Amino acid sequence: MSVTILKGTVVSAPALGRLDVTEGGYLVAEAGRIAGVFPALPGQYAGAAVEDYGDALILQSFADLHLHAPQYPMLGMGMDLPLLEWLNTYTFPTEARFADPDYAREIYRKLARELIENGTTRVCMFSSLHREATLILMEELEKAGVTGYVGKVNMDQNGIPSLQEETAVSKRETLLWLEQSRRFRHVKPILTPRFTPSCTDELMVFLGELAVERGLPIQSHLSENWRELQWVKELHPGCDRYWETYAKYSLWNSRTLMAHCVWSDQQEREAMAKAGVTAVHCPDSNQNLCSGVAPVRVMLKEGMQVALGSDIAGGDHLSMFDVIAASIRASKARRILDNWGTDFLTVAEGWYLGTSAGAAFFGQRPGFAPGNRLHAVVLEDGDLPQPHPLTAAERLERAVYRRQRGAIKAVWSEGRKVFSAG
Amino acid sequence: MSVTILKGTVVSAPALGRLDVTEGGYLVAEAGRIAGVFPALPGQYAGAAVEDYGDALILQSFADLHLHAPQYPMLGMGMDLPLLEWLNTYTFPTEARFADPDYAREIYRKLARELIENGTTRVCMFSSLHREATLILMEELEKAGVTGYVGKVNMDQNGIPSLQEETAVSKRETLLWLEQSRRFRHVKPILTPRFTPSCTDELMVFLGELAVERGLPIQSHLSENWRELQWVKELHPGCDRYWETYAKYSLWNSRTLMAHCVWSDQQEREAMAKAGVTAVHCPDSNQNLCSGVAPVRVMLKEGMQVALGSDIAGGDHLSMFDVIAASIRASKARRILDNWGTDFLTVAEGWYLGTSAGAAFFGQRPGFAPGNRLHAVVLEDGDLPQPHPLTAAERLERAVYRRQRGAIKAVWSEGRKVFSAG
Repeated sequence: MSVTILKGTVVSAPALGRLDVTEGGYLVAEAGRIAGVFPALPGQYAGAAVEDYGDALILQSFADLHLHAPQYPMLGMGMDLPLLEWLNTYTFPTEARFADPDYAREIYRKLARELIENGTTRVCMFSSLHREATLILMEELEKAGVTGYVGKVNMDQNGIPSLQEETAVSKRETLLWLEQSRRFRHVKPILTPRFTPSCTDELMVFLGELAVERGLPIQSHLSENWRELQWVKELHPGCDRYWETYAKYSLWNSRTLMAHCVWSDQQEREAMAKAGVTAVHCPDSNQNLCSGVAPVRVMLKEGMQVALGSDIAGGDHLSMFDVIAASIRASKARRILDNWGTDFLTVAEGWYLGTSAGAAFFGQRPGFAPGNRLHAVVLEDGDLPQPHPLTAAERLERAVYRRQRGAIKAVWSEGRKVFSAG
Repeated sequence: MSVTILKGTVVSAPALGRLDVTEGGYLVAEAGRIAGVFPALPGQYAGAAVEDYGDALILQSFADLHLHAPQYPMLGMGMDLPLLEWLNTYTFPTEARFADPDYAREIYRKLARELIENGTTRVCMFSSLHREATLILMEELEKAGVTGYVGKVNMDQNGIPSLQEETAVSKRETLLWLEQSRRFRHVKPILTPRFTPSCTDELMVFLGELAVERGLPIQSHLSENWRELQWVKELHPGCDRYWETYAKYSLWNSRTLMAHCVWSDQQEREAMAKAGVTAVHCPDSNQNLCSGVAPVRVMLKEGMQVALGSDIAGGDHLSMFDVIAASIRASKARRILDNWGTDFLTVAEGWYLGTSAGAAFFGQRPGFAPGNRLHAVVLEDGDLPQPHPLTAAERLERAVYRRQRGAIKAVWSEGRKVFSAG
């Protein structure tokens, strides 16, 4: 049986707000699954090869649970525009280009590589509505070593002519895509109605039935913007709250991800907690688009499952170090908004959200728990000046705040070494 | 007379919210001062050497008008702590280390290099209270090509024992430092009472007289935190507002910089506009320390002079690309705080604040105006994917949002080429 042994300063997040640190520790995996973290190498591994990273940090890799792959080429653009104009000027025309498989191949190869170089090994990702481009995206992710879920987007109303499907075509293409994506091992399909206003009742019924029949996970958007809330209410006058427009089609369960939830009130949050729906907090995007500031600290207190998403290209940071820092900042903005009445996220809490909380959607226990698949990054930070000898927690905090490009020396995903610097 | 000619896509900010773009343009300087930006090379320069950067962006370099040099080693740490604990655990002990000239030399050399590599060529900077370390800082900045003002900090009360001066010592050391800093050409002294609570009346009187007698500029902190406001009121019961505690000592004029101004009310803002005091907005720091969100858009509307500061290490970004992005995000947070009643900063406005507005403190006209000293960066961004052929404004926006390490290819400061990549 293949054994992987990484030696360094092993840091993990076994619970919200807690860090486990083992200096000079051994992270051991057998056949791609974690056996444990040990302060000294257990006898049974004597003689096995050890990858010794000295004093470097050995960290959990990241899970980015909400991003739009076809928006990658427009990262960091159009941020001065109101949401609707941004969608029409940038988002929809850019996504429409993915009708071209060559363009898709070029862009998705770059994206997959950038994800891995930044230590993101797990994703839940929106593709565009193009089946072929979606398969190319899955293939490129799989090749690069990114694991997780990718969704062909469904949208049969309220798009633009070049980025909208006939209902029948949307159904047919979805079934074909599910069939054709069976060939991937580490990247799996997730049902992806863009958001309630994008889908006819007929399409939603179809997707809900598919989710139930095949046990497929689901991702979409929820309560991002208060104008959107009004719109959804007009479209579904029978639903008191936005979440019910998913629940009534059986798209609301413990395998459901809902991005944003900025405006989810207490009842909607309760409905999420009860069903086990995961809220994906996208702090950069919410601030860039002036959507609002999600009350993440309150969500956590209420026992909701919350993970993080870069939400490129509403968000402008692909690196999850940045997204974690942004989540902390957003919680501080929220604190100010709440007149200093709510707490902010600590670094350890933000770190948990960007790693363990995201991995939970893939059935993993928090931290480097035995039995988990090996997903890890090695980070070297010895070049930076320091005010005093640093603890591992201080080094982790600095890694979160200072985007140290080139500091990631190696990345493991599903037990495989998928990146090695230099 | 020496002539410098840079060819590329020349972009500058000649007014708040406006960008001038000259594609395939020539930025010409004679003896270090800008002659103009031309769409074609004027006849009188025929035969002169042209540095041709192809399609690269040629931009104004940055002015960072508030940062604490001795806090550089603690960049990105201690952000979970309340302000007072942060000061006592990190800031003061770290600053105290600069009693050691060797430590100062090592750290300040790194800092100066990092500033230049990130395109910051103008600064107004706090040193610590150590005279020798301050001179070392000035020397390292000058060597690296960073220009501007550096202040030996004055603090004779409310510090910690290892980081506080006797009043007489503070005066004597300040005079000696002014004398010894005459040898620098591009880095000049600025009077720097840490903030009102740090200085006795006697010291403030001394500094105010010095400012008047020698025509020296002044930098300090103002209305950063509402608890601080209360404290200042207790210390100076005769002053209705914080700003008056500077004005009464003649430390309030058009050569004064005041960092933060988060809680400056309309009267205080009017006093700034009237005296020509520049407010230095430090968005990262204000958010990290939960100080609040400065109403920058309102300040600009009222005709105040506003520039940007990284405020390391309350701020965690040294790159002014990031600080500009942070200022835009902060203005959006403020918009949300104001219930969508105020505008946000556009990219062009943020860019103006980080370049032209800062340069104004050094007597420069906005943009690449003829007569200005040549301060410029060359930025290459050809490797990034793109959704459609980009305008120069779109490329600038992307540069602001995407920290492209390694994209800065060359930097000019005071007419000198101070950095060249690779």
